[in-house]
Amino acid sequence: MGKFISDKNINFSKWYNDIVIKADLAEHSDIRGCMIIKPYGYAIWEKIKAVLDNMFKKTGHLNAYFPLLIPKSFLSKESKHIDGFAKECAVVTHSKLKSINNEILIDDNSKLKEELIIRPTSETLIWHTYKKWIKSYKDLPLLINQWSNVIRWEIRTRLFLRTSEFLWQEGHTAHASSEEAIQEAILMRNIYNDFIKNWMAIETIMGIKTPKERFAGAIETYCIEGLMQDKKSLQMGTSHFLGQIFSKAFDVKFLDQNNNNNYVWSTSWGVSTRLMGALIMSHSDDKGLVLPPKLAPWQVVIIPVYDNDLIFNKISHLANNIMEKLNKVNITSIYDNKKYHRPGFKFSHYELKGVPIRITIGPNDLQDNTLEIFRRDTRKKMTIYKEELISTIENLLKEIQSNLYKRNKNHMINNTHFVDNYDDLKKTLNSKGGMIMSYWDGSQEIENKIKNETQASIICIADNKEKLSGKSIISKVKSNKRVLFAKSY
Amino acid sequence: MGKFISDKNINFSKWYNDIVIKADLAEHSDIRGCMIIKPYGYAIWEKIKAVLDNMFKKTGHLNAYFPLLIPKSFLSKESKHIDGFAKECAVVTHSKLKSINNEILIDDNSKLKEELIIRPTSETLIWHTYKKWIKSYKDLPLLINQWSNVIRWEIRTRLFLRTSEFLWQEGHTAHASSEEAIQEAILMRNIYNDFIKNWMAIETIMGIKTPKERFAGAIETYCIEGLMQDKKSLQMGTSHFLGQIFSKAFDVKFLDQNNNNNYVWSTSWGVSTRLMGALIMSHSDDKGLVLPPKLAPWQVVIIPVYDNDLIFNKISHLANNIMEKLNKVNITSIYDNKKYHRPGFKFSHYELKGVPIRITIGPNDLQDNTLEIFRRDTRKKMTIYKEELISTIENLLKEIQSNLYKRNKNHMINNTHFVDNYDDLKKTLNSKGGMIMSYWDGSQEIENKIKNETQASIICIADNKEKLSGKSIISKVKSNKRVLFAKSY
Repeated sequence: MGKFISDKNINFSKWYNDIVIKADLAEHSDIRGCMIIKPYGYAIWEKIKAVLDNMFKKTGHLNAYFPLLIPKSFLSKESKHIDGFAKECAVVTHSKLKSINNEILIDDNSKLKEELIIRPTSETLIWHTYKKWIKSYKDLPLLINQWSNVIRWEIRTRLFLRTSEFLWQEGHTAHASSEEAIQEAILMRNIYNDFIKNWMAIETIMGIKTPKERFAGAIETYCIEGLMQDKKSLQMGTSHFLGQIFSKAFDVKFLDQNNNNNYVWSTSWGVSTRLMGALIMSHSDDKGLVLPPKLAPWQVVIIPVYDNDLIFNKISHLANNIMEKLNKVNITSIYDNKKYHRPGFKFSHYELKGVPIRITIGPNDLQDNTLEIFRRDTRKKMTIYKEELISTIENLLKEIQSNLYKRNKNHMINNTHFVDNYDDLKKTLNSKGGMIMSYWDGSQEIENKIKNETQASIICIADNKEKLSGKSIISKVKSNKRVLFAKSY
Repeated sequence: MGKFISDKNINFSKWYNDIVIKADLAEHSDIRGCMIIKPYGYAIWEKIKAVLDNMFKKTGHLNAYFPLLIPKSFLSKESKHIDGFAKECAVVTHSKLKSINNEILIDDNSKLKEELIIRPTSETLIWHTYKKWIKSYKDLPLLINQWSNVIRWEIRTRLFLRTSEFLWQEGHTAHASSEEAIQEAILMRNIYNDFIKNWMAIETIMGIKTPKERFAGAIETYCIEGLMQDKKSLQMGTSHFLGQIFSKAFDVKFLDQNNNNNYVWSTSWGVSTRLMGALIMSHSDDKGLVLPPKLAPWQVVIIPVYDNDLIFNKISHLANNIMEKLNKVNITSIYDNKKYHRPGFKFSHYELKGVPIRITIGPNDLQDNTLEIFRRDTRKKMTIYKEELISTIENLLKEIQSNLYKRNKNHMINNTHFVDNYDDLKKTLNSKGGMIMSYWDGSQEIENKIKNETQASIICIADNKEKLSGKSIISKVKSNKRVLFAKSY
């Protein structure tokens, strides 16, 4: 096959695209900005969904489903919100086609009285509905999540990272008090963080967004950022405290225990198929995808090496035996017995697909007391005793998971630089890249200036439990806002 | 609370709607024909999805995701297909809104070059894609499923049964031979049948559709029909053998093992949130929803009856203990300890929601060696020994599941009538309703005449393994097409 993935260090963006395409994760469709998620990519997304869904349910959230289409008038009810989404709306205007002389045309008689927008996010529709659902404190908290597709018309798109249609979950909760809503927004951010660290094996920075970078209609946006291998940051999940913005826009009040009518407090939070992009960019190498074992569709691949059918049958017998044992300890595996592909092709193929462990079985292995296994993360081979195979694999999967996280954490540590003046910020950005930590006085003017001059934005105001403070960048004012500047996706 | 569900025998359709609304399954939204699936309804749908998804995967199918939007020109490529869907298309024409004097309007500059249709089904988009994926016999069979939302603009809608947007799965497979594709179409119909009988506890009739009733673009439509309590039939799942219709429309050929280029053979198959409607209409009664235990979000509810906090705490202790034991044997349960609702309210509430078994715990039960349980299907109470609680519940859940199926099967048997002349058909339809079995000569003229005169259509040509034959209705010609006439949803 030769070398067919671009070099990561030469052209990161081409390397990324090559992996997505060649590992069969996704591809572009002929509909502008919309992707097709292929079975192998979708299998990873299904794992992500299942784990998150379980975490949401354990914390009392229920799933529901709201309509795809939102009347234009709903979307317009909250002014900041509509400003944020107006320029990327898919607008439905008609409900019929007709055929004239074998040509299919829009049926003008089917023009809708009011245009419908394909949801870019569902706050407006859901809050319109919550008005009917919420009457008293007994109806609160209302903790609902939805798994769905949304459309935000994008001009420049990249598979998984920025697509016009994407899959996501959107949580929408209603609470009796501001404190409880803030707690919920933070809880969900922490759940995302737990998932990203412990399942995706990606190190994170947590914080809040600056007013400029907040979700359209939020009072506070809690966020989680990761640092990709090209030293650009990626926003991986956001959780918004919406205050009473939407309850006021949609007039949602509740009767409290003292018989007073109050506006409800709310949150929304979401992660999307963008996480797939983060997963790919964080761990993969020039041989292809590298997957953390906890999210790999197949954790182990078994490849036979043989020159006659008798040997092949014996190897297959052993392979099936191993697969059964792995299955008993909940390890997923695949035995590739395709006869029209050679072992070398298969080795490359499963490396490309990021399968964490490979077991090769050849004629000698049928007699020997040992077997050769290969781990994808370090690309090292090791010889192990057959009777220790299952326990070795169990341990090795844990080790690969933790090794990937450690590697990613070191990458973040090594590429986070503290500066306290603007010249150093510019120099460090140019020479090293990565995340630049500094203090900031809260001025949007300075934020804009730095963005315009360096392309780096404030990706977050980092959580600051230690209450550290220092000299702000440019203004030199003392501040406890520790912010991270980075070029980002 | 009094009587608040309409009488099933007086107004079936109002009764149905009452249950959907009052058991919190779904509600109408303000978007024409689109429903909101509420958490309790969605929890049942999630169970349906999980079981089916597992069945699909066990038979080698993989999930993927294709775009929501289909270019008008794709949809138009197969003439019967577009004829079938043209009159119910949601058409996207623009990609931006703009604000003028605080009014939000469509931005005319954002008019799309080609209109996009929200998928009513995805054959056209998927076959456009398969052209890129299928080159040789090595790429076959291609067995792909998608869980998604679709829109078919409906004028008269009913919650779950007929909505403009619905959730479903659509399988799309490609094969090297006609025989293999037919086998696949039948396999999937059989999987649906297995699910509907063994999980939904609904008796079925299997067969094929008449040419008039086939899917737009199918060579053969395999179908499963059930008989609702109002004696109208409901189509619950269809699986289509598409021949080479779509491979020819989209020019999808493969190189076979003899190096010949052939058009691919295909199938598609789907079930939707309509199954929720079937589930509700098959088992429920005037007290509300009745759920088969295998699909109930909670299989057991525990309700405390107490007059002071001390007793309440003791009951709660016992209830938690029972829940833990039930959890260990994978039985889902809920303990309703809400203090602001009285036991009588709770009894009605969980009957309405169709929870299969209720355990009531009062002060006496703390000392006694027995407990009272209530089964939803027969509404009978029984007293059981405490030490046998878990095993009794395990058995009772199985019994309820099989009782519901038996009841439904008897309903089908009692309401299926054989006739061999048109007068009897009309009389039986008027006096008894249900399914009318007869022989049919295959004439669409006769099919139309009967439909026009009686409102009953041929819901299916029943599978006829016994090769029975008889005198056709109206024409009196001998035929082995045993068909079922019924008024249907």
